[in-house]
Amino acid sequence: MRMTQLFVRTLREAPADAEVASHQLLVRAGYIRRAAPGVYTWLPLGLKVLGKVEDIVREEMGRIGAQEVRFPALLPKEPYEATNRWEEYGPNLFRLQDRRGVDMLLGPTHEEMFTLLVKDLFSSHKDLPVTLFQIQTKYRDEARPRAGLLRGREFVMKDSYSFGLTDDDLAAAYQAHREAYVRLFDRLGFDYVVVKADSGAMGGSASEEFMAITPIGEDTIVRSPGGYAANVEAVTTVVPEARPTEGLPEARVLDTPGTPTIETLVDHLNEHHPREDRLWTAADTLKNVLVMLRHPDGSAEPLAVGVPGDREVDPKRLETQVSPAEVEAFDEAAFKKHPGLVKGYIGPGALGAEGTTGIRYLVDPRVVEGTAWVTGANEPGRHVVDLVMGRDFTADGVIEAAEVLPGDPAPDGSGPLELARGMEMGHIFQLGRKYAEALGLKVQGEDGKLATVTMGSYGVGVSRAVAAVVESTHDEYGLVWPAELAPYDVHVVLAGKGEELAAGAEQVVADLEAAGLEVLFDDRPKVSPGVKFKDAELLGMPTIVVVGRGYADGVVEVKDRATGERRDVPVAELVGELTR
Amino acid sequence: MRMTQLFVRTLREAPADAEVASHQLLVRAGYIRRAAPGVYTWLPLGLKVLGKVEDIVREEMGRIGAQEVRFPALLPKEPYEATNRWEEYGPNLFRLQDRRGVDMLLGPTHEEMFTLLVKDLFSSHKDLPVTLFQIQTKYRDEARPRAGLLRGREFVMKDSYSFGLTDDDLAAAYQAHREAYVRLFDRLGFDYVVVKADSGAMGGSASEEFMAITPIGEDTIVRSPGGYAANVEAVTTVVPEARPTEGLPEARVLDTPGTPTIETLVDHLNEHHPREDRLWTAADTLKNVLVMLRHPDGSAEPLAVGVPGDREVDPKRLETQVSPAEVEAFDEAAFKKHPGLVKGYIGPGALGAEGTTGIRYLVDPRVVEGTAWVTGANEPGRHVVDLVMGRDFTADGVIEAAEVLPGDPAPDGSGPLELARGMEMGHIFQLGRKYAEALGLKVQGEDGKLATVTMGSYGVGVSRAVAAVVESTHDEYGLVWPAELAPYDVHVVLAGKGEELAAGAEQVVADLEAAGLEVLFDDRPKVSPGVKFKDAELLGMPTIVVVGRGYADGVVEVKDRATGERRDVPVAELVGELTR
Repeated sequence: MRMTQLFVRTLREAPADAEVASHQLLVRAGYIRRAAPGVYTWLPLGLKVLGKVEDIVREEMGRIGAQEVRFPALLPKEPYEATNRWEEYGPNLFRLQDRRGVDMLLGPTHEEMFTLLVKDLFSSHKDLPVTLFQIQTKYRDEARPRAGLLRGREFVMKDSYSFGLTDDDLAAAYQAHREAYVRLFDRLGFDYVVVKADSGAMGGSASEEFMAITPIGEDTIVRSPGGYAANVEAVTTVVPEARPTEGLPEARVLDTPGTPTIETLVDHLNEHHPREDRLWTAADTLKNVLVMLRHPDGSAEPLAVGVPGDREVDPKRLETQVSPAEVEAFDEAAFKKHPGLVKGYIGPGALGAEGTTGIRYLVDPRVVEGTAWVTGANEPGRHVVDLVMGRDFTADGVIEAAEVLPGDPAPDGSGPLELARGMEMGHIFQLGRKYAEALGLKVQGEDGKLATVTMGSYGVGVSRAVAAVVESTHDEYGLVWPAELAPYDVHVVLAGKGEELAAGAEQVVADLEAAGLEVLFDDRPKVSPGVKFKDAELLGMPTIVVVGRGYADGVVEVKDRATGERRDVPVAELVGELTR
Repeated sequence: MRMTQLFVRTLREAPADAEVASHQLLVRAGYIRRAAPGVYTWLPLGLKVLGKVEDIVREEMGRIGAQEVRFPALLPKEPYEATNRWEEYGPNLFRLQDRRGVDMLLGPTHEEMFTLLVKDLFSSHKDLPVTLFQIQTKYRDEARPRAGLLRGREFVMKDSYSFGLTDDDLAAAYQAHREAYVRLFDRLGFDYVVVKADSGAMGGSASEEFMAITPIGEDTIVRSPGGYAANVEAVTTVVPEARPTEGLPEARVLDTPGTPTIETLVDHLNEHHPREDRLWTAADTLKNVLVMLRHPDGSAEPLAVGVPGDREVDPKRLETQVSPAEVEAFDEAAFKKHPGLVKGYIGPGALGAEGTTGIRYLVDPRVVEGTAWVTGANEPGRHVVDLVMGRDFTADGVIEAAEVLPGDPAPDGSGPLELARGMEMGHIFQLGRKYAEALGLKVQGEDGKLATVTMGSYGVGVSRAVAAVVESTHDEYGLVWPAELAPYDVHVVLAGKGEELAAGAEQVVADLEAAGLEVLFDDRPKVSPGVKFKDAELLGMPTIVVVGRGYADGVVEVKDRATGERRDVPVAELVGELTR
C-alpha cells in the first residue's frame, strides 16, 4: 500500500474533545473519526487493527471450543422485560419503536437472546455443555461518552455464554474462559490484572474482571502484597468487633460555631474541647451524606450515608450498592422538603426510620456497636460528641460506600492495599440460573426430570482493546503497534530525490512484499523526509525502513519503532533481517 | 467439527411463516433463526457461509483498489436532513432519540456519511479519485418484512462509494465496479442479469441492477432478443405518433348499463354498438384509476391515472414515478369527498385541472393526441365513445405506470420483450454531484478553483446473497452449497455400528483434515443411518462420504450432493479424489 493511495490524512492537532492519548493519536494518525458523540468510524488503518484484535479473540475462543454465532443488534423487548432489564437498564438502553409502534431495543448485551436460542434448540442434558460466542456491535447510551473508543455508545464486543447442567459444568466453562482470557490479553500486550469484581446489575456469583492498568482508567483496583486483587467496588471492609456500650462517656452536645466541614470541626474540637489522650482526628467524626436515588421506575428516594469523616463516599462503590437505582445529587429543593436537615450539622437524630425526617440511613461497616462518634446535632453550629452506636443511635443498615484508602487491610488478611487505576477489558461471570429461570431454559436431566440450566457470561471489549493497546504502548511521537496488531509490518520511507533512489525504494518494497511482509510505502513525491519521518512515527508500524542517502552505498536505515534503535543494513540483507 | 458438538438442530417442519425455499431450508437446516420480524440470528453454519460471501466481496473490491472502512450504524440526523432523506425515507427509516432527546437513526445506506468523511479528509484534486467500501449491518423498517434473509429489517450490505473530479473519473469507477460485480456474482454462482434500473429516490443518472433470476423475485425484469435488459420500472413506452384530430368521428355518449368493468363494457359494445371494421377490444378503452399519494410530509393528494383498458396499473412502476410519495388506496372516504366521481364510469371530464373534481390526472404515454377512446361518462351506466385526446380532453401530464406486457417492443428497437422475475442483488449507480452539492464536498481543482466532487454509489446485498444462492441451488432434499461457500467441504457420515467402523470413520476424518479439508463428521451414536443421510442432504455440503458396510472391504461411498452421483472409492484413494 502506498501513502499516495491510502485513505488517510494525519493531523498535527488532536481534536478539541480528545483528552486521552489513545483518542488523540488514533484520530491524529487517521485510524478513526468521530461520527457522533461516542460513535466512531473506522478508517482503513484502524479497521485493520480492529480485525487483528478480532482474529486473536476468535482464535482463543475457538481453542476452548466455543462456537461462533451472530445475533442482531435490533432486538425485541419481550425477553428483556422477562428479566426486568428493559427497566433496569434505565437511560443506558437505546429504545426505539418500529413503524407499527412495537417497542424494540439496541442490544447492550445478549444474555436473554442466547438463553432463548439454546432453549429453542436444545432439550436434553446430552446437548450440554455448550459455549457460544459472538463478535458483534453493541449499544449503550452512556451518560458521558468519552475517551474515544474507551467509552463509546456503539462498540464491538466479544460476548460468550456457557450453558451447563451442573455447577461443575459452570465452573469448568468459567475456568476455560479465564485461561482463554489470560492467553488473549497476553497476546494483546498491555499490562493487566485479574480482579474480583462486583457483579453489579447482572446478579450471580463468581465474577472476575480483566483490568488494563492505566492512569486514565475509570476504575480503581486494589492489590495486596499477599496477592489479593479486586475492583474497588468489590472490596469489603474489615469490620472491627462490636464493643460493650457500658461505661462509655455520656453523649453531650457542644457549641461548635462555624464548623460545617470536617476540617473546621476537628480544628475547633482540638482548640476548644481537647481530648486528654490524643488529638481529635477526622476519623473520630461521622459524616452523613445525602443523595437522591433514582429507581428504574422513575421514582426518587432520599438516602443518607454515614461514613467516618476521614473518608469520602466513593460514588462508584455507592452506585454499585444501590444498583439498579442511579445516584443523583440531593439538591436545594430536596433540602427544602426536609426542614429537619441542617446543612453541615446533620446527625443520626434526623435520620433513619426513627429519625425526625424518616430518611433511610445506612452506615459504613466500621460504625459497629459501641463505637463513639462526633457528629451533627441537627442544629446550626452544634455537634454532639460521644454519640455511641447501639446506645444513642441506630441505622437502617450497613453500606459499603466509603472510599478505600491505600493501606487499608485486604479483606483476606493478605496485607495492606495498594490502589491503581484500571480499565475493564474483560469480564468473566458465573451467572448461574437467573436468566435460565426467568426465561424457562430447562432440559431433561439424566433422571428424566426437567432441570434448569446454569450459565456463565463472558465479555471482552474488542474495540476498547484497540485503545487500551495504544494507551499502553504509545510514546510522545505517536502510535507504537505490537507486531501482531500492526496494520503493516514495515513502513518504507523514500527519503530523497531522483529516479534511481525512487526505483531503489520500489525494489525494496517489492522484495519485502515478496517475502510475505505487509508494507506501507511512503512514496509521496513532494513531501519532505522530515514530514515523512514524523508521519511514520505517528502511524506506528513496528519497523521503519528509510531508503535515502546510504542507498547509493548499498545500505538502508532500519529503525525499530518501539526502542528507537536505528542501524544501517545492507540492502541485500534487509529481507533476511526483517523476516528472522 | 462433530455433529455431537456442533450447535445445530435440524427441523422436519419449516416454520409457519416461511414461504420461500431459502427461508424454509436455512431455518430447517439450522443456519439461521428468527429473532424478531425481519431480524435473524446467524447460527454457526450460517455464519460460516456469510463469512465466505463477505470474503468474496472483499476480495473483488480489493481487486479494484477500493479501501475498506466501517461506519457506525447509529448515525446523527443532520447529514440526512441536509439531503432531505430524513424525511424522504418516511417510515422505512428506524429513528430513535438518545437520552438527551437528540434525534438519531439506524443507517439504511451511508451516502451522506461517506461524503462527509471525504470532505473531512480530502481537499485537493490530487487526492482523487478514491473508492471506499464497507461490509456493514444496515437497517430498514420494511412495511412487509418477508422471505427470511431476502427482505429483512437488519441485514448485511457491502456499500461502496467512488469520488472523482470529472465525469470520466465517475465513468471509470462505475465501469470498474461493473466488472467487479460480474466477477463476484459469477463466483457466487446463481443466475443473474444486469438490467437498466430506475434510480428511484437516489437521484442521478446511469444505474444498473444485478438481478438474480428467480421465480420468487419481487421485481419484474424484461429482456429482448436484441440484448435489451431492464428492470420493469425502467422500461419506457414506445410512443405512437400524434395524429391529426380533424375528420375523426364526434364523441358520443352511450347508455351502457351494468358495465362497471372493462370486460363487461367491451362485451356490451360488441353486442349493442358493434364496430364495422373489427371487434371492440379492451385496448380501445381508457381506464381511469384513482389512488391516494402520501407525501413524505404526511400530506395526502389524490391522483388519477389513465391507462389503456387492456393493461393494469403496475404498482411498482407507479410507485417509482411518484417517489418519494407512497401510494395508498383511494378509499370510500375519499370517494365521498369527491361526489363527481362515479365508480366504474369515471371519465376525463371529471379529472384534471379543468375537470369537475380538479384531481390531478396523468395518462399513459400511448394516449397521444388524436387517439380516440371509450371511457367513462361520469354518470352511472354511461360511457363516451370516440373521445379524442387533444380535441375532447386533455391531461395534466404523462406517467409510465401501465404494466409492461410480454411482446411489448423494447424501447431501443431490439425486439419484443420477455418478462421474468428477478431479485435485486447488486446496484451500481452514478450519483453524480447531488450529495456532494448538498453536503458541500468540494476540492481544489488543477486551476486552483473549488470544484464539486462527483460520486458513484454501489451496493451488494451480502446476507441476501446467501438466500439467493439457496434459491438457485437447492433441491427437494435440502441445501446444495457451491464449493466456495460451503461451511464444510466434506460431510462424513458414520453409518453403522461397532468400534472398528467408528475408528475407521475417525481415521477418514483425520486424513481429510490433514489434507486441508474442512470436515463435518456425523458421529452421533444413536442416530440411524437414514436420519444421518437426510440430515447430510439437508445441510448441503458438496461431498458426502459414507463410512459404512463397504469399509470392511476398504471402500467408502462418495456422493456428490449436487448431482446425486454416488460411487465407491477405495479408502486409500479418498484424499486424492477429494483434493483433486
